[in-house]
Amino acid sequence: MNEKIRSQLYQDAKQWIKEAGTTIREKINDPLIVDTKSNPNDLVTTMDKETEKYFVNKIKTKYDDHQLLSEEGFGDKVKSLDGTVWIIDPIDGTMNFVQQKRNFAISVGIYHDGVGEIGFIYNVMDDVLYSAIKGEGAYKNGVKIPPLKEKVPFEKAMISLNHFWLCENRLVEEEVMQELVKTVRGTRTYGSAALEFAYVAEGIMDGYLTMRLAPWDIAAGIVIVNEVGGVTTNVAGEKINMLVNNSILVCHPSIQKTIIKDYIIKGKKRLGHN
Amino acid sequence: MNEKIRSQLYQDAKQWIKEAGTTIREKINDPLIVDTKSNPNDLVTTMDKETEKYFVNKIKTKYDDHQLLSEEGFGDKVKSLDGTVWIIDPIDGTMNFVQQKRNFAISVGIYHDGVGEIGFIYNVMDDVLYSAIKGEGAYKNGVKIPPLKEKVPFEKAMISLNHFWLCENRLVEEEVMQELVKTVRGTRTYGSAALEFAYVAEGIMDGYLTMRLAPWDIAAGIVIVNEVGGVTTNVAGEKINMLVNNSILVCHPSIQKTIIKDYIIKGKKRLGHN
Repeated sequence: MNEKIRSQLYQDAKQWIKEAGTTIREKINDPLIVDTKSNPNDLVTTMDKETEKYFVNKIKTKYDDHQLLSEEGFGDKVKSLDGTVWIIDPIDGTMNFVQQKRNFAISVGIYHDGVGEIGFIYNVMDDVLYSAIKGEGAYKNGVKIPPLKEKVPFEKAMISLNHFWLCENRLVEEEVMQELVKTVRGTRTYGSAALEFAYVAEGIMDGYLTMRLAPWDIAAGIVIVNEVGGVTTNVAGEKINMLVNNSILVCHPSIQKTIIKDYIIKGKKRLGHN
Repeated sequence: MNEKIRSQLYQDAKQWIKEAGTTIREKINDPLIVDTKSNPNDLVTTMDKETEKYFVNKIKTKYDDHQLLSEEGFGDKVKSLDGTVWIIDPIDGTMNFVQQKRNFAISVGIYHDGVGEIGFIYNVMDDVLYSAIKGEGAYKNGVKIPPLKEKVPFEKAMISLNHFWLCENRLVEEEVMQELVKTVRGTRTYGSAALEFAYVAEGIMDGYLTMRLAPWDIAAGIVIVNEVGGVTTNVAGEKINMLVNNSILVCHPSIQKTIIKDYIIKGKKRLGHN
């Protein structure tokens, strides 16, 4: 991608994300209409929709040849990653947004011909913006995030994991995930995929493992984590397909093989679309 | 407890906690000596010990007739809750402290003749102080925390729970805990018992359930949660004994019975000292 165009895109995206965040903060205590989608805990609010429409309007006005793949469906029906594609989750962690009024993020990834060029994860209530341009490093509120530490022994790793994968489910053997929990140093659950990526990039978590996520949950995080030396694949260690749902293993490179070999392969049932 | 004495105790404790927090923030990037205690993931650092010694010194100098029950053992061998007892965890969430350099808290509870009179939970890196005096409400950085909302339907509850209780363990049937995870709206794990109490008090989590905690993990949290109308018992619904380890169920009152009746009683194996 042309560097001048990329730089302009970065500036525009950053400004729009900050503006959208300001609006959300101003309205955080307003009454919300909360609907459910695929299940009673898959929430969507008027704020998710309004924020997405704001991005659609901005992008379509300034970049009418770009495609837009987004959670609430106001973007395009994206069939190919040719050209420039914005991949957006207006509010990642909607349950946190609804019930906690914090711990959620705006996630914006910009891909060109299938390559992640720009990533933004904005923790709105804390006003913390994680950002990255491919090849130029990752930043937290403008301060460069150092590369991941040299080595993480698996038994000292901290892993983000939803409790759900320790319960009987269709995608992974829960007993194997329980073994993983008992082997690593600690496990956490924060409730926003985008923020769990950001925490791996910061090195405060060593990995994040989940059996199914949509492109908008991960598009920005992949760009950011790659810039500090983290690995971002599906749980088979394969490249992620940004047009479908994927399983996700994002982690420090020194623990990737162990997780795949000693846990995922043993625990594999049926891994979604992969 | 005499109100004037209590007010003075509150002011002293608050000042010492803030001072200790300032010291921790100043030294947060200094090299640490990390040791392990009961198991390889039960961590203690020089900072835990130095912070505890700071409190011991302050308390023993000004209040030499008070007892001090604390995690790292520099306090007293407390055999009774008669008189005034300070119950202190200098750094609650030591794993977070070591690996994340945030998401940990100083926890200070002051009990008189067995009654929780004062509670402080200080999220050091965020500079957020939760505090309560019995009968006078709970505060977050000086702003009164409103009472818990009127009702929480169990299927919409968010519960804090360590992943460990979903794995085979000696204290509770993991299958029953897994059922709980699948029934409530969401589950989270933050890695600091004191902060999980604070989040229940704030109403951003509806409950926190764990099978074994020490007095210093819970002493402050109990005072704070009680002030907003939360319930704080062991998992059998019984009063907590502040001289021993306890199982803990801290939650919105509207979900307590369901958790005990439909999950804990069914899943009971051997509940620690209770």
